[in-house]
Amino acid sequence: MKFEKVDLSFQSCNSNYDESDVVIFSVPMDATTSFRPGTRFAGNAIRVDSFGVEWYSPYRDRDLKDYKTVDIGDLDLPIGAVEDALDIVYETTKEILNDNKVPMMVGGEHLVSYPTIKATFEKYPDLHIIHLDAHTDLREHFFGRDLSHATFMRHVHKFVGDGKIYQFGIRSGEKPEFEWAKKHIHQRKFDFEGLVEAVEKLKDKPVYITIDLDVLDPAVFPGTGTPEPGGMQYKDLLWAIDQFEKLNNIVAADFVELAPMLDPSGASTAVAAKTLREMVLLLHKNIEKKQK
Amino acid sequence: MKFEKVDLSFQSCNSNYDESDVVIFSVPMDATTSFRPGTRFAGNAIRVDSFGVEWYSPYRDRDLKDYKTVDIGDLDLPIGAVEDALDIVYETTKEILNDNKVPMMVGGEHLVSYPTIKATFEKYPDLHIIHLDAHTDLREHFFGRDLSHATFMRHVHKFVGDGKIYQFGIRSGEKPEFEWAKKHIHQRKFDFEGLVEAVEKLKDKPVYITIDLDVLDPAVFPGTGTPEPGGMQYKDLLWAIDQFEKLNNIVAADFVELAPMLDPSGASTAVAAKTLREMVLLLHKNIEKKQK
Amino acid sequence: MKFEKVDLSFQSCNSNYDESDVVIFSVPMDATTSFRPGTRFAGNAIRVDSFGVEWYSPYRDRDLKDYKTVDIGDLDLPIGAVEDALDIVYETTKEILNDNKVPMMVGGEHLVSYPTIKATFEKYPDLHIIHLDAHTDLREHFFGRDLSHATFMRHVHKFVGDGKIYQFGIRSGEKPEFEWAKKHIHQRKFDFEGLVEAVEKLKDKPVYITIDLDVLDPAVFPGTGTPEPGGMQYKDLLWAIDQFEKLNNIVAADFVELAPMLDPSGASTAVAAKTLREMVLLLHKNIEKKQK
Amino acid sequence: MKFEKVDLSFQSCNSNYDESDVVIFSVPMDATTSFRPGTRFAGNAIRVDSFGVEWYSPYRDRDLKDYKTVDIGDLDLPIGAVEDALDIVYETTKEILNDNKVPMMVGGEHLVSYPTIKATFEKYPDLHIIHLDAHTDLREHFFGRDLSHATFMRHVHKFVGDGKIYQFGIRSGEKPEFEWAKKHIHQRKFDFEGLVEAVEKLKDKPVYITIDLDVLDPAVFPGTGTPEPGGMQYKDLLWAIDQFEKLNNIVAADFVELAPMLDPSGASTAVAAKTLREMVLLLHKNIEKKQK
Amino acid sequence: MKFEKVDLSFQSCNSNYDESDVVIFSVPMDATTSFRPGTRFAGNAIRVDSFGVEWYSPYRDRDLKDYKTVDIGDLDLPIGAVEDALDIVYETTKEILNDNKVPMMVGGEHLVSYPTIKATFEKYPDLHIIHLDAHTDLREHFFGRDLSHATFMRHVHKFVGDGKIYQFGIRSGEKPEFEWAKKHIHQRKFDFEGLVEAVEKLKDKPVYITIDLDVLDPAVFPGTGTPEPGGMQYKDLLWAIDQFEKLNNIVAADFVELAPMLDPSGASTAVAAKTLREMVLLLHKNIEKKQK
Amino acid sequence: MKFEKVDLSFQSCNSNYDESDVVIFSVPMDATTSFRPGTRFAGNAIRVDSFGVEWYSPYRDRDLKDYKTVDIGDLDLPIGAVEDALDIVYETTKEILNDNKVPMMVGGEHLVSYPTIKATFEKYPDLHIIHLDAHTDLREHFFGRDLSHATFMRHVHKFVGDGKIYQFGIRSGEKPEFEWAKKHIHQRKFDFEGLVEAVEKLKDKPVYITIDLDVLDPAVFPGTGTPEPGGMQYKDLLWAIDQFEKLNNIVAADFVELAPMLDPSGASTAVAAKTLREMVLLLHKNIEKKQK
Repeated sequence: MKFEKVDLSFQSCNSNYDESDVVIFSVPMDATTSFRPGTRFAGNAIRVDSFGVEWYSPYRDRDLKDYKTVDIGDLDLPIGAVEDALDIVYETTKEILNDNKVPMMVGGEHLVSYPTIKATFEKYPDLHIIHLDAHTDLREHFFGRDLSHATFMRHVHKFVGDGKIYQFGIRSGEKPEFEWAKKHIHQRKFDFEGLVEAVEKLKDKPVYITIDLDVLDPAVFPGTGTPEPGGMQYKDLLWAIDQFEKLNNIVAADFVELAPMLDPSGASTAVAAKTLREMVLLLHKNIEKKQK
Repeated sequence: MKFEKVDLSFQSCNSNYDESDVVIFSVPMDATTSFRPGTRFAGNAIRVDSFGVEWYSPYRDRDLKDYKTVDIGDLDLPIGAVEDALDIVYETTKEILNDNKVPMMVGGEHLVSYPTIKATFEKYPDLHIIHLDAHTDLREHFFGRDLSHATFMRHVHKFVGDGKIYQFGIRSGEKPEFEWAKKHIHQRKFDFEGLVEAVEKLKDKPVYITIDLDVLDPAVFPGTGTPEPGGMQYKDLLWAIDQFEKLNNIVAADFVELAPMLDPSGASTAVAAKTLREMVLLLHKNIEKKQK
Repeated sequence: MKFEKVDLSFQSCNSNYDESDVVIFSVPMDATTSFRPGTRFAGNAIRVDSFGVEWYSPYRDRDLKDYKTVDIGDLDLPIGAVEDALDIVYETTKEILNDNKVPMMVGGEHLVSYPTIKATFEKYPDLHIIHLDAHTDLREHFFGRDLSHATFMRHVHKFVGDGKIYQFGIRSGEKPEFEWAKKHIHQRKFDFEGLVEAVEKLKDKPVYITIDLDVLDPAVFPGTGTPEPGGMQYKDLLWAIDQFEKLNNIVAADFVELAPMLDPSGASTAVAAKTLREMVLLLHKNIEKKQK
Repeated sequence: MKFEKVDLSFQSCNSNYDESDVVIFSVPMDATTSFRPGTRFAGNAIRVDSFGVEWYSPYRDRDLKDYKTVDIGDLDLPIGAVEDALDIVYETTKEILNDNKVPMMVGGEHLVSYPTIKATFEKYPDLHIIHLDAHTDLREHFFGRDLSHATFMRHVHKFVGDGKIYQFGIRSGEKPEFEWAKKHIHQRKFDFEGLVEAVEKLKDKPVYITIDLDVLDPAVFPGTGTPEPGGMQYKDLLWAIDQFEKLNNIVAADFVELAPMLDPSGASTAVAAKTLREMVLLLHKNIEKKQK
Repeated sequence: MKFEKVDLSFQSCNSNYDESDVVIFSVPMDATTSFRPGTRFAGNAIRVDSFGVEWYSPYRDRDLKDYKTVDIGDLDLPIGAVEDALDIVYETTKEILNDNKVPMMVGGEHLVSYPTIKATFEKYPDLHIIHLDAHTDLREHFFGRDLSHATFMRHVHKFVGDGKIYQFGIRSGEKPEFEWAKKHIHQRKFDFEGLVEAVEKLKDKPVYITIDLDVLDPAVFPGTGTPEPGGMQYKDLLWAIDQFEKLNNIVAADFVELAPMLDPSGASTAVAAKTLREMVLLLHKNIEKKQK
Repeated sequence: MKFEKVDLSFQSCNSNYDESDVVIFSVPMDATTSFRPGTRFAGNAIRVDSFGVEWYSPYRDRDLKDYKTVDIGDLDLPIGAVEDALDIVYETTKEILNDNKVPMMVGGEHLVSYPTIKATFEKYPDLHIIHLDAHTDLREHFFGRDLSHATFMRHVHKFVGDGKIYQFGIRSGEKPEFEWAKKHIHQRKFDFEGLVEAVEKLKDKPVYITIDLDVLDPAVFPGTGTPEPGGMQYKDLLWAIDQFEKLNNIVAADFVELAPMLDPSGASTAVAAKTLREMVLLLHKNIEKKQK
């Protein structure tokens, strides 16, 4: 066989599933998006543009080429059938965890974190969640739905319970959400203050990291459905990932809400692609720690 | 009261509901869109840009100012809950028809024509449908759903029955759809040939006109989710509307699938806005005919 | 009457004029713009996109829903007739002030602040002005005109007199403008240093706040005609509005220079929409203070 | 002197003024534009992109390199002062004509044809006008102004008189404009039918050609302020220019209404640049005819 | 192995190399592009957007799913080293032909057709070429290079000889190119007239089809580096492919010059994707004919 | 001669070559760009948009009008012939230096700094280089080429030798590049720390300043081929230029990597234009110092 079929895995993450420790998958779903849709295209946009990203990170001083990662692509989802799509995400996460691999999910809208977290919680009942976001995502209902991008963390709370969710960077929501948060979760408004302490506390707990990239300022990341001015710089996010290096048991992670068409300059896609490199390298180091 | 609240009705269509013969409403839904979403923004984009459209049509030689039309805006829909949203569209159409007014609906994705046609059929059981489109929309299932933008006309067939649907301009679909069409509906591939004859046959029947603007060539109308090269020119569409003038009983109409963000030049929105003017003037003339 | 006409008021600001304390109006004028025009579209772009803005501000801990605000839309202006257009802005502001309401004007180019300030000054002869901007706007003449976006603050000085204007964030202008400023107004170059002291001094004075959004860095706000690199972050602007809370007598306010088409990502429009929410909430609190 | 200053003349049209027969100038004015502005940038956009245009036309079988043409660039205009700006255009045209050269003007909005035609009429009192456009431009008043892009041809009529104006391609206007046209000018709606006959009649008359590029369909030319669907193809415009070859006395010409920013693909600018090449070659051939 | 690596083959063309009759490959090179670059991104843009293209063609009444096609992706090319890159294209084509498969190449700039044609000629010394293009590509030299997108067909002539090249749709070039063409090749200016006759003549010859998509009008295909107004409609191209069905020995084919970033609406990429479906189906039918 | 040919020199830099101290030239080359091309258009985009830039800098308190600067435009380069193009850049720089003028080069891709630095080194053998960049540009080979945008500084090192290159802001590269850097050059990762000390050390040395504008964060400067998140703010760059004022012998300078089409808002071009003003004013002050 002289030529191989085209391979558009993220950057150099083209190991096979069986040999890989970290599994990248993307979820092309933006069904409950209330404002501007388009996050369904995030996965493939990141893949195609990852050509412009180095495999070496000077921040982590590690190299994607030194690790085994597989990219299984966009999940194949029914369109307009929210519950069925969430089931597929749930099953996929479950299988990856059963195979003792670490899932690295790329959204899609933030609701797709719900089934991923749920499957992870079922394996790790003491699961704690670090959640970087501009929005609380803590409503009870939203436009007549129980489960949506604006309510999903409230529903996550229903199974993980009080005191397990740590939110940072929040700058938008309704008043009752902020009041509810005071009683049930850890919430830091506007910035990442307190992250060092949180990481210290969660050091040996099973941790799920979920990053809504709109926690960044729209200057840095305009390619998202609901730009919320007054956010973080990219250096702040890199600093946060530096802190995550101190965690000993990251069991799964995701980032969400890139809508690549909304930023034709490609800068938002570059932000997501670089974040994916940093997260994959973070997860591999974490696996090494656990293997020792 | 010195100042009025802002009024962004389409062009000069700012009569009140009770005094109006034609009712414009828009449906901000793109939940089953398989490719690029964004049609949910069509209604307000057309409203804001209608400032650039004359109220007089040299094609119809009639003036929007001479008729009573109300624009009731975007319907208020739950997000991500397809069935609930369709119900609201259905109920709205039903009430407008009950008030003996003619609905002029603006999509959204093409699935939103389903409840509008259904409500219209219930009032007019001999309903015939003229359907301009690039796509057959005749699948049995699509990405795991029965009811979607790609299947909805098949479902319309279930209640209107054989021989009631007249499709023109079709240039994309699966092979079984084309074969099914031969047996159950009138279908013209690639262009509008046969429209004169169809209009002659349907002259005195109750007729619903549904226009998927992607029947136009993407050159003319790039601002749509699934551009399908090889389509019609705008002059062809104007010619088709000229033919519709010969119908005596148009009972409702719609056009769908403008995704305004996909064409930053604004030309696609201008196409939709001008089409809305022509359609509203067509409907008013038709009402006058019936009143005689 | 079963259905209401479409209402595209900014966010939830849909009270009637008579019952409202704050009156939003927008001025679709960019006639003296020297570089890239388009600010005439700002008002309606903000209205349509305000759907993506919460009514609650976690910064002010107040809710738009708890106040009465009317949005009277774009003023109806002659095109290309600068003086006539300015007269209409002047008369509108005057009427709103006469009705004991607080005007919140949205530009348009910065020249439209001239008639608004003039009308406000005529009611409050001790008027002081806080002016956030990248540009001095202090020229004597500009491209052969006395009154333009580049000269208007010099003309405001003619009636308010020395020491009444406080500029912050200025980073562009001609040398004579900077020299003139030293003698006649308070001017802070490049940033907001000294704002705390200025607010302290103006605490009980009648104050007009005018914000040229290009005081922000083009990273944060690229959708403007003359992007001037080296500006403020959005958090700085939020901090400035925090300071304004300490003023006791804000009598009118505006912000200007959003050109929405220049930023197809929508992030600049989001900046303006959020600023409008913050400003309206600021004005209502100020009215409450005065009513006590 | 080792190096020359940068020269960004249109294509190869870089002769000096004195030696040139045809004088290109551009008018960066969009002051009375009612909808989307930006035509002020047309001239320089065409210059910079003319690099992508050949100097040889296979349509005319002539070469820009074989003729002497000067490009004097954008006129230097006051901003927001419509009358003063028009005066400068008038004076410029007058001087060029006095020097026995043929002006080739590039707009800007269509109003800038008014002073150019006026100056040309004063030299050629029997002036006839061929006018390709989507819009009538025949209103009496427009948004409170006598003289604007929407009224200018009505004002031209005031000095050239009845029967001198030949319009083609018109598809937008108010009803009274179309009625007025029947009595005072030659008007062809929707297409170029009758152009052959018009050219035959005007063969030996002094003729001014003014082309509003929005006569083209927005598919072909989306980069314009008021896209009007249902227009001409580019091949139709090339055919029209072929007809103009039969005229014996073209005394001046212009085209207007390119707004380059509205079409980031650059295709609209390419249309304008190619049209400029064709028009300049047309004018040179015409001069040759007259010199014989 | 529970999950497969991501597969972004064009549409459903995901057979393995050995079992396939047609081999798609793309050439990410735009090194000699004189005007706006970006064609290097064409291959992957088509792959990602091919999701929006049906596998069934109503034009050919054939289905991609019924044939074996492999997509080997972008070739891996050195950057800025024109000759080395061309060598890789040459070797790839040669190997595919040696394996008795039909290459379907996707550019990149048009120069990449040179090595593909050369390798094909070496296998089929009586090779004839059908060339659809806006530009002659027949210069001797171009910006100091012998071999570039503007000269390559002149160089192809050097080995195929007189009378073997059939050009259609040509509307731009230098005068000497058009004159040279009269003596050495078949050239049709402006449209496709004569294609039926050409196909009849070449019926049993080995034929290479090369389509520069800029033969289409920029209205239809704005996403290209050098838009040349006055071109063909998409229906014309479909008609041309219909004619190609009558050829009995198509030995290789390509299309080139999509620059996807230049058309953010995605319509140009849709044109290319649909063309690729039609071409692959054309080639498979041709193979079937030969196998009989 | 009544009218002058069009002059599109940068801002007011329109002196003749002989009388000028500083010579601006631009290099329209992006031949070895690995990711998104388009920097070839930077020079003319800056020229056309420099209309929006003041000639006075409040940062330097100096005025372009008070100095003699010539802008000789884009160099005329062969396309796709890297070595020949570099030779022309080299010869141009050499002649400017021989005429005792200071070259201010505008890229183009970063490789074009190689011949400029080489020519400068030949006149000033003790040349030191201050290099602001996101990328190391220190590879040995890149995609099969010795000399490319990704390797050029390694090749500069070959003639300037160890310890002469000072890099700041670097945040992307391969691991071996960072290791090589430790031994041979001064390299500061991520920010500009140490710049004060470097300037102090280089105070009386001949210094070449090369700024890859992608050292800025993509928020500030999205219009570049390889956006690298986590960069500097524009105020940081202004601060760096303040430091450069303390150098006594700047012998040449450049900035590179603006790709204007990638940022349709124009903000990136504004960043480049303002930087050019600041750099030209910096160079003139430096010349004055040397003349004393």
